[in-house]
Amino acid sequence: MSNAPIGVFDSGVGGLTVLEALTARLPHEHFIYLGDTARLPYGTKSPETVARYSLQAAQALARYGVKCLVIACNTASSVGLPVITRYIENVPVIGVIEPGAQAACAASRSGNIAVIATEGTVRGGAYQQAILRIRPDAQVNAEPAPLFVALAEEGLNEGSIADDIANHYLRPMFGATEGAPDTLVLGCTHFPMLARAIRHAVGPKVQIVDSAETTAVSVDARLRKAGLAGTRSTEGVVRLLATDGRERFARVGSRFLKRPISPDEVELVDL
Amino acid sequence: MSNAPIGVFDSGVGGLTVLEALTARLPHEHFIYLGDTARLPYGTKSPETVARYSLQAAQALARYGVKCLVIACNTASSVGLPVITRYIENVPVIGVIEPGAQAACAASRSGNIAVIATEGTVRGGAYQQAILRIRPDAQVNAEPAPLFVALAEEGLNEGSIADDIANHYLRPMFGATEGAPDTLVLGCTHFPMLARAIRHAVGPKVQIVDSAETTAVSVDARLRKAGLAGTRSTEGVVRLLATDGRERFARVGSRFLKRPISPDEVELVDL
Repeated sequence: MSNAPIGVFDSGVGGLTVLEALTARLPHEHFIYLGDTARLPYGTKSPETVARYSLQAAQALARYGVKCLVIACNTASSVGLPVITRYIENVPVIGVIEPGAQAACAASRSGNIAVIATEGTVRGGAYQQAILRIRPDAQVNAEPAPLFVALAEEGLNEGSIADDIANHYLRPMFGATEGAPDTLVLGCTHFPMLARAIRHAVGPKVQIVDSAETTAVSVDARLRKAGLAGTRSTEGVVRLLATDGRERFARVGSRFLKRPISPDEVELVDL
Repeated sequence: MSNAPIGVFDSGVGGLTVLEALTARLPHEHFIYLGDTARLPYGTKSPETVARYSLQAAQALARYGVKCLVIACNTASSVGLPVITRYIENVPVIGVIEPGAQAACAASRSGNIAVIATEGTVRGGAYQQAILRIRPDAQVNAEPAPLFVALAEEGLNEGSIADDIANHYLRPMFGATEGAPDTLVLGCTHFPMLARAIRHAVGPKVQIVDSAETTAVSVDARLRKAGLAGTRSTEGVVRLLATDGRERFARVGSRFLKRPISPDEVELVDL
């Protein structure tokens, strides 16, 4: 079982930032990544629909005999985690929200924490609840930043348009001279692509928490604890599955995974 | 049959700009609008997937006994029209591409025509082909402008961000002192929402063709020709169906339809 692959799923290509962090931390593990590109984005859909889609994606990965399941999508983690843990038995399931909330609470001195995410993640309140469970005195301000998704997918990560949009979302939260948050959670897997524009907008002192890295740490710890860490000395293999659009997955995904993806590598699956 | 409703479908709320033009031109007709919000957007998906989704939406509307079917989505028109006309019998099917192409060819003096649309519509080449069928000497330059969709959905229709993004897409096409297009087709139903920013970017002389209005004219003519025009003297009734997210449909859709929509008006359907 410890040589079985780790399943990673996302609504599309955003979760490749999490896969990238996972492969960097766990280079000997095998991974199967599933992007539900036929039905993306999850961020604007209702909780019921996101939960249903997430469960279908999790079940598809379970059929590949994965030893662990990572929900590399904030929206799916926020509403899908309970239903997935109920239906997928004997496989640890790890979302991105809890590791992100823990990292934010550890990073913040004042307890004044800002979260930017998709509409669905903000509305669901999962980050707000996860942070307050860990740190009941925290002040959490969560706001949607949907244009960041489109910017990242188009590769407009830097420059005046990215800066303007980052200012549009972040200045109202961080512009105050007093009482501004000291920590910002990037609550969508697309947002690390815009790290530079986001840094420009919030200034040098704000702690920026990117849940990709913190999730990789969390998966590592969970595998060790469960005795499921891979024992291979060879390099891990990564399989990429998508529900639609090989060519676009390869083109846009290459930027997110930080390595070239060929359309031929992408296997189409139907959920 | 002439008192049966007209079916209008789109991947989401963008087609409400077409519905608005239709109700303005045909105030005595009944309409059933279906937004496939559970699976939007179509603009980044593969032609096969868009064709399958479009056919399912068309079949759902056909079950309501519509007398005419309007595909109020450029991406769905571009790849779904042939399959829909094959499977939906005895109901006239009208897409937005052909009326838009006709209007562009009529408006352009030089025959140098620019089209902005979603990735899927541009890649499919339907506008380019439709324009060249009508006017074989035309020079057509079609480019994707996907951020416009996110801007319109977020209501950021005007202001410096909208202007910057409009310049980003349009200046490379229209900035040349010689040989610039004299006509611009808004090949996505979201784009009329950004008319002002688009006008700023292209200057006062370019003819801007919005396919909502031209499609309404085309539907009117088609109904008369087929003897299907409504004979009522009372005001037409509009039913709104969506596959997901009543609340978001109402909130975002109100801006597109230019009248308030209550979430209670929106009927959820499963395709």
